[in-house]
Amino acid sequence: METILKVEGMTCGHCKAAVMKAVEGVSGTNNIIVSLENKEVTFNTSNAETVEKVKEAIEDQGYDIV
Amino acid sequence: METILKVEGMTCGHCKAAVMKAVEGVSGTNNIIVSLENKEVTFNTSNAETVEKVKEAIEDQGYDIV
Repeated sequence: METILKVEGMTCGHCKAAVMKAVEGVSGTNNIIVSLENKEVTFNTSNAETVEKVKEAIEDQGYDIV
Repeated sequence: METILKVEGMTCGHCKAAVMKAVEGVSGTNNIIVSLENKEVTFNTSNAETVEKVKEAIEDQGYDIV
């Protein structure tokens, strides 16, 4: 299942890397793409619970899911 | 000797941390303050050569000294 999350607050390459690392840190995610321009994160996962964990991991880094 | 460098390109806390780390990495620097709002780095050093090394270290992180 492809999931696209809109993420507010990423301003630079360091932010992009921090969000990438957050998503990678949640088991069950793959094909992760972080776009600064589009302010979004795209990834594949097999279940909805993983999506919720990803949202939390991104928010824990100080970014907002919108 | 207090030195103030104007730094362009810092957008977030990660940038601030990267610049702080760059200045800390040059021996002979102390009392380092990085200000995102003022777009500047302040530090003390005893010689001009150290200032040049600090400029290079910051530029190596992808920021411009103006």
